[in-house]
Formats: sequence, C-alpha cells, structure tokens
Amino acid sequence: MSGGRDVGILASHLLGAFQKEMFTQLAAEGHASLRPRHGAVLAYIDVEGTRASDLSDRSGQHKQVIGTLIDELEDLGYLERRPDPSDRRAKLVVPTKLGRDQMIRAARIRDEIEARYAEKVGKPSYAVFKNVFNLLVQP
Amino acid sequence: MSGGRDVGILASHLLGAFQKEMFTQLAAEGHASLRPRHGAVLAYIDVEGTRASDLSDRSGQHKQVIGTLIDELEDLGYLERRPDPSDRRAKLVVPTKLGRDQMIRAARIRDEIEARYAEKVGKPSYAVFKNVFNLLVQP
Repeated sequence: MSGGRDVGILASHLLGAFQKEMFTQLAAEGHASLRPRHGAVLAYIDVEGTRASDLSDRSGQHKQVIGTLIDELEDLGYLERRPDPSDRRAKLVVPTKLGRDQMIRAARIRDEIEARYAEKVGKPSYAVFKNVFNLLVQP
Repeated sequence: MSGGRDVGILASHLLGAFQKEMFTQLAAEGHASLRPRHGAVLAYIDVEGTRASDLSDRSGQHKQVIGTLIDELEDLGYLERRPDPSDRRAKLVVPTKLGRDQMIRAARIRDEIEARYAEKVGKPSYAVFKNVFNLLVQP
C-alpha cells in the first residue's frame, strides 16, 4: 500500500494533535484539571446521563478503565452517579453544571478544529475524508 | 461541522482497531510479548538503527516515554543500544534479528489492513482519504 505514512501512524498523530489542542484550549477556559484520558468518558456522555456500560461500549475502553475515569471526573466535580429512573438497580453517570460547561466548550473547540482542517485541505476533500473515516470506523 | 462523529473520536477508534489487529496478528506469528505501546518505537525505527531522540521526534512521544519503551524492548530481545559510528558520544537503537523479523511481519500486516480498507471504501476514495490525512498530519 502506498500513500505515505500508514494509517495507524496517521491516526496516532492526528489524535495526538487533536487532543493537545482540545485540552490546551479547555485549560485556557477554566478546565485545567482535565487530561486527554478523560476524553474516553467526556466525548461520549449525554447531557441527561449515560450508563457506565454504554460509555464503555461507545468508547471501546474496558469497563474497569471507564470506572476509574468516572471516579476521577466525579472527584474533579464533572460528573455524578445517580439512580437510573428507568431501572432502580442501575446507575446513570450525569454531568454536573461544571461538566455541562465543559461539554459546550468542547463542542465549540471541536467545531473550530474541524473547520480549520476543512479550510486547509478544501471542503470537498474534507467531506470525502470524513465520509471514508466514518465508513472505516463502524459504530 | 457536520459529517457524523468528530475527527478525534474517529482517529481514536481507527487507531484502536488498527492496533488490535496488528498486535493480535503479531502475537499469532510469534511476537506475543509486544503491546500496542511498543508501536511508538517499532513503527519508527530504521533497520540500520535510529537515535532515541529521533524516535521521540518521529513518534511525538516524550523522550522519557521512549526511553522506557526502548528498555522494555531491549529486555524482550527486540532492540540493542550500540555506539553510533558517526558520533561516538551518541547511541543508536538497533533492531536485533527478532526485531527485524517483527518489522517485516508488521509491514506485511499493515499492507493487508490498508488493502482491506481500500477495498471496503473503493480505491479512489481511499486515495483521497490518505492524501487528506497526510496533509493534516504534517511531518
């Protein structure tokens, strides 16, 4: 396969650059305690709350890893564990006010990064890029 | 930005799938001690040897992380530290026979993965995908 560096190397570098920009900017906006590893929870949580097992499924990380990250984010004031109204034996992980502030800022930063990427390579090429990426990464 | 999941999430999932396939296949071919973290060294080393500082630059990982990975890979028999013939104060990290066997197999597995990706989305789209990816990830 030609095409310069392989797709594993490219994915690793793009992820690193994306996370660096995301967490540097979040730190500048008052979220300096967050680390890239927290993205495995924060990028997948719903504002109305999500079960830990769903966070594990969505992120592809082991339940134990997700549990540790939820503990850390709870200690930092970003999340709370609450009983799930639809199943009293289950718990929902719900963002706090601080967590919701982070979600709004992260969504804006993400849009800014992607808009710059699209600008750099041209919008039509970026659309193909995103489309192929979505096809290769099955939900 | 529309286009489904954001590029950070996509890169994270693609990297995870790529590493899982790479290291599962390497394990099946006799390299069961290797872990995805070792990719930060193994994916960037030259067969004739590479300085640790260059491995750090190429992978984007901190020198300390690379040093730890080199130690691990030396213990596992994949690498040796040797004096650099071009500068006797410097050291080169050089793959052993076991390391060279891994490099050949990893290159083949990488080509198989990418050929399958190109097959899945169509070769022209995959070429655009790789081209945009290379543009976004500056060397």
